[in-house]
Amino acid sequence: MSNPSLLILPGDGIGPEVMAEVRKIIDWFGAKRGIAFDVSEDLVGGCAYDKHGTPLHDDTMAKAQEVDAVLLGAVGGPKYDVLDFSVKPERGLLRLRKEMDLYANLRPAQCFDALADFSSLKKDVVAGLDIMIVRELTSGIYFGEPRGIIEEGNERVGINTQRYTESEIDRVARSAFELAMKRGKKLCSMEKANVMESGILWREVVTEVGKEYPEVELSHMYADAGAMQLCRAPKQFDVIVTDNLFGDLLSDAAAMLTGSLGMLPSASLGKPMANGRPKALYEPVHGSAPDIAGQGKANPCACILSFAMALRYSFDLGAEADRLEAAVEKVLADGVRTADLLNEEGRTPASTTEMGDAVVAAL
Amino acid sequence: MSNPSLLILPGDGIGPEVMAEVRKIIDWFGAKRGIAFDVSEDLVGGCAYDKHGTPLHDDTMAKAQEVDAVLLGAVGGPKYDVLDFSVKPERGLLRLRKEMDLYANLRPAQCFDALADFSSLKKDVVAGLDIMIVRELTSGIYFGEPRGIIEEGNERVGINTQRYTESEIDRVARSAFELAMKRGKKLCSMEKANVMESGILWREVVTEVGKEYPEVELSHMYADAGAMQLCRAPKQFDVIVTDNLFGDLLSDAAAMLTGSLGMLPSASLGKPMANGRPKALYEPVHGSAPDIAGQGKANPCACILSFAMALRYSFDLGAEADRLEAAVEKVLADGVRTADLLNEEGRTPASTTEMGDAVVAAL
Ligand SMILES: CC(C)[C@H](C(=O)O)[C@@H](O)C(=O)O
Ligand SMILES: CC(C)[C@H](C(=O)O)[C@@H](O)C(=O)O
Repeated sequence: MSNPSLLILPGDGIGPEVMAEVRKIIDWFGAKRGIAFDVSEDLVGGCAYDKHGTPLHDDTMAKAQEVDAVLLGAVGGPKYDVLDFSVKPERGLLRLRKEMDLYANLRPAQCFDALADFSSLKKDVVAGLDIMIVRELTSGIYFGEPRGIIEEGNERVGINTQRYTESEIDRVARSAFELAMKRGKKLCSMEKANVMESGILWREVVTEVGKEYPEVELSHMYADAGAMQLCRAPKQFDVIVTDNLFGDLLSDAAAMLTGSLGMLPSASLGKPMANGRPKALYEPVHGSAPDIAGQGKANPCACILSFAMALRYSFDLGAEADRLEAAVEKVLADGVRTADLLNEEGRTPASTTEMGDAVVAAL
Repeated sequence: MSNPSLLILPGDGIGPEVMAEVRKIIDWFGAKRGIAFDVSEDLVGGCAYDKHGTPLHDDTMAKAQEVDAVLLGAVGGPKYDVLDFSVKPERGLLRLRKEMDLYANLRPAQCFDALADFSSLKKDVVAGLDIMIVRELTSGIYFGEPRGIIEEGNERVGINTQRYTESEIDRVARSAFELAMKRGKKLCSMEKANVMESGILWREVVTEVGKEYPEVELSHMYADAGAMQLCRAPKQFDVIVTDNLFGDLLSDAAAMLTGSLGMLPSASLGKPMANGRPKALYEPVHGSAPDIAGQGKANPCACILSFAMALRYSFDLGAEADRLEAAVEKVLADGVRTADLLNEEGRTPASTTEMGDAVVAAL
């Protein structure tokens, strides 16, 4: 039997740096735990544009469709701001999500004990926080047609379309209910059903799916109230399910609240492939951070923990994922801190490599 | 010369209670400062539906178009959740905004010194916070066509359309730049130009308008990063300008961060009328809070401060607005607290009426 396959797309900015640390982790699992992967590497985002004139080459897309899981660093940078919309780095990532049909984006917002002080929120508001945001990732206003900038009368008009079909809502709702069953059995669905018809349909379908999960306590909240409640008392939530655009804002806000942005992974999952594994892409929540790229300052933990999610969701290696997560927590408890996790003056932060090495040592 | 006219729409839930306190303030200005208004009152929201079968009667709409300013309490309540979309309480408010063409929604997010401890954020992150969010209010996905729930194949599809014309962006950008000129001369525009073409047009037009305001330091941020930065370090902002939907979420999050949700007013302004005053509607940021309605628990300050905004923006009575705002701050400094401003056990909160009376006394 061949090894499971992993496609690594480091991308732009700090992507390559943090991914180099993940490589060490992957090697450790191969050497010490006999869990070997066939790893290949390719380009996505600005670096792909630089080489191929497109943020995602068709060959890379094809590879991503074939492997068991994709691990992505980050895309984008100011250098590419001038590019036409159609070839911006982000389009590479969006194409992966769309063509792999990765409809369920799992974004844990978790506050690490050792970092609770680092949040802008009061410690008692965030300590122990552990929520999961399930964001729809392949539809909504990100992809709906018609879209574009058109001429009308004597001025331009910018147009985007929010579009959700029942089945698109149904499948992501199911993912969220399944997750809630494995966690605290509470699900809160967020939309603007008071203003948007797509929100009305969203609420109806989620309610309908909920009937199949009588054990899960389902609630609904308008997305603006949701943003408020996340800021006020995030621990009231267990699992949150929401659409692509609301999920973008709400999960970023939730991530920031934990004070651990450099720590947060994500998984984007699609339908099961022939081998039973879901199509999957794993990536840190943070971006390409061009301001600190290439300086050894980036925190590799979010990307390392994304690999832990891969172990859990793609390879059914939950115990190994636990082991890796525990190693990261131990390193934090030991006081190892990259620059993003330090607010005191006068302490020398650990470099990207030092943090990666510390995690390997803790394993 | 006749008195300036004011249409009061208390609405649902706690609306009537908080508006009763504003009435006392209006009376005080008439009696003690010789500033008299012709006040009329009418229905909006659920109570209008109960009486007329519509959340905003045409006669009320016509009155709103004629007066110098509208003061609104809040709309909505669980009782109306079952109503058809077209007659929900919110439609009354949205119709007012749209037909009065109130394109610039000014939402200050201000942290009152006496309340800094009450925020879920650390005191140093929010103390002294004073930002202004300018939200576009008459266009975007709230109003764009096509919209609705249609049948396609054998399933339903929920559709809404984000649509912004250059002139719609231009005019709200101008309002924001004008405000920035009177404040800290910093403006941050938020959209998702990396994903949405309407965001690209937004960024272009705001940049163009910015050339007429060389003194204002203009920056651009993706709305998800904006949500993060608001949670992390809100004091980095002075004025923020954003579209209708992003503004809905971001201004609610910002309001909650201050810890002073029950304190925050808003102004929605349109084009100047024949008398030079802008079309205007003032309302608290908080909602109808049906859970505490009718119990004398609501904080009337947000609605009182909305009247202060009316004094400033509609009636050019900036000094009187300052006076009213100072009175509210004094009452807070004196320790008067409605239930929403108390987190200690064992203190009896001030009632809605007591808070209103305290503000009158401080005047
Ligand atoms: C980079 C960008 C296209 C992306 C998004 O908007 O989805 C990012 O913000 C994210 O949340 O993964
Ligand atoms: C009540 C609702 C229609 C409204 C909105 O979504 O604009 C409210 O949330 C607001 O922010 O004023």
